[in-house]
Amino acid sequence: MLAPEDRKLVDGVLAGQLRPLAKTITLIESSREDHQARAHKVMEALLPATGNALRVGISGVPGVGKSTFIEALGLYLIEQEHRVAVLAVDPSSSVTGGSILGDKTRMEMLSQRTEAYIRPSPSAGSLGGVAARTRETMLVCEAAGFDVIIVETVGVGQSETAVAGMTDIFCLLQLPNAGDDLQAIKKGIMEIADLIVINKADIDARAAQLAKSQMKSALMMFRHASPNWTPPVLTLSALQKDSVAGFWDEVKRYRDTLTPTGEFDAKRRHQALAWMWEMIDSGLRSRFRSHPQVKHELPGLARAVEEGATTPSVAAMRLLGYLEKPSQ
Amino acid sequence: MLAPEDRKLVDGVLAGQLRPLAKTITLIESSREDHQARAHKVMEALLPATGNALRVGISGVPGVGKSTFIEALGLYLIEQEHRVAVLAVDPSSSVTGGSILGDKTRMEMLSQRTEAYIRPSPSAGSLGGVAARTRETMLVCEAAGFDVIIVETVGVGQSETAVAGMTDIFCLLQLPNAGDDLQAIKKGIMEIADLIVINKADIDARAAQLAKSQMKSALMMFRHASPNWTPPVLTLSALQKDSVAGFWDEVKRYRDTLTPTGEFDAKRRHQALAWMWEMIDSGLRSRFRSHPQVKHELPGLARAVEEGATTPSVAAMRLLGYLEKPSQ
Repeated sequence: MLAPEDRKLVDGVLAGQLRPLAKTITLIESSREDHQARAHKVMEALLPATGNALRVGISGVPGVGKSTFIEALGLYLIEQEHRVAVLAVDPSSSVTGGSILGDKTRMEMLSQRTEAYIRPSPSAGSLGGVAARTRETMLVCEAAGFDVIIVETVGVGQSETAVAGMTDIFCLLQLPNAGDDLQAIKKGIMEIADLIVINKADIDARAAQLAKSQMKSALMMFRHASPNWTPPVLTLSALQKDSVAGFWDEVKRYRDTLTPTGEFDAKRRHQALAWMWEMIDSGLRSRFRSHPQVKHELPGLARAVEEGATTPSVAAMRLLGYLEKPSQ
Repeated sequence: MLAPEDRKLVDGVLAGQLRPLAKTITLIESSREDHQARAHKVMEALLPATGNALRVGISGVPGVGKSTFIEALGLYLIEQEHRVAVLAVDPSSSVTGGSILGDKTRMEMLSQRTEAYIRPSPSAGSLGGVAARTRETMLVCEAAGFDVIIVETVGVGQSETAVAGMTDIFCLLQLPNAGDDLQAIKKGIMEIADLIVINKADIDARAAQLAKSQMKSALMMFRHASPNWTPPVLTLSALQKDSVAGFWDEVKRYRDTLTPTGEFDAKRRHQALAWMWEMIDSGLRSRFRSHPQVKHELPGLARAVEEGATTPSVAAMRLLGYLEKPSQ
């Protein structure tokens, strides 16, 4: 079934080798159709070896100290005999072609460890495309034996929702800064955060405590995903090893609380189905847009709809009607 | 182009007659394919006569006094020589087949006036279907000369977003009840409300003032759609005529503020385009689901995705692949 070169990739990944891992991810990120076809076959072959990692989403605005925190966490986890992959969903990368996240130079010590694998955000495509590729990359890393996957994102647009939709636990990093909580409320992130961290708490302990109590009262305004888990608010400094250990204890407590109730697995099943439907919807739309008659008529009809010269449903039905022509 | 019976409907609607109006709306609400085809033609014929009403969305939980308020508002508007249509988007109607909104018995005095037309929520289909039909009904009412369209909804699920997406101004009715504001924040409604009304303020004036200042400070946490409009918070009693007049003054002030800046028209254009894409997406999905092979394979593949036996993208690609078979 698999071509010999793809068989080699699969075997290499399953053996935990970094070069085949990187090559496989590059295949996944390629927009060439033949690459995508190969990537699907490789993914199917890797699939039985996936699902064994704890998937941790970490979000926060630039300046909150994500890199320092993730590097400290990664080094701590390696000490605990974990293997750690750090991936990124960076909406800016699809605009600039470059990523402000996930470059190895930011995490110098971690990137030198063979037990860690750091991969920057894919730089092509929409957020949807970036997220889809990161999800598959996550699975490849799991097949390669990484048992903690950290997916980081900046607080831009819908990227947080995308990362929360692919990880087991979504952690929000905040500065010890009064008023910062309002930003999180405004953007609806409080509702998807499973764990909140006030970072850089060593700089001003009093501000950090104030921020903590603000976040706690803000959290009370929201209904959370599980009746068995109230998102805790931690104050810590990424520079202190105890802090990082405390953070990891909370992540494990989350898993250990929601696993016996079945919620942990249910969340993954739900995420997988939602992901399938996202791919279907986006596939349907791109097929639709590439239909010759749709391509030709869409701009004019969209203008007519905007100007009130035709109704949205008449325009939609006319465009959808073209899809049936070839098979009639 | 139009069949004689449809020509009669169109002429009747354009003449402002209630019976052809009701028949046309019934045609729109029908799920029969031949009815839908006729409805589209009728809509196209009516289109040039649409767009001249002020479209007002009104939302609030059961018990907040929506019916009493809308009846008082309707009677006031008739006095001001307006013609008022009251429509409903009621997500409960698609479940129970009956509607908790929009039945005429709730607005006895208003329903007896020939200058008013009250239409309950369509009872078939998903919220998306209900919303689509209500949007078209709104246009038919405009063609029949109604110059104020009130679309009401209960605060359930996504119905508020649907109503805000089809009206010019979205008004939230609240009770003079501390803590109620938190509900609105939780549900993200504060972000889409253009006007907030503390109803039943006559019962406890002090509580109403407290609720008002709570809502005002909650509003400050959100970025609003227009830099030129900060949503005002009114306290009123639907039983007092002055209150209703004051409400309407605010609605007019909204229109008169955002019309010269171009925002009023831009919002309608944006709504129309978004509506077209919603119809396209839902059309694409229903065609997809009705494809024989997709229908046959979807349940099994969805199960495999949930169980981790296949990846979401492999499942999506396989299902999408079936669509191409007939034309190959």
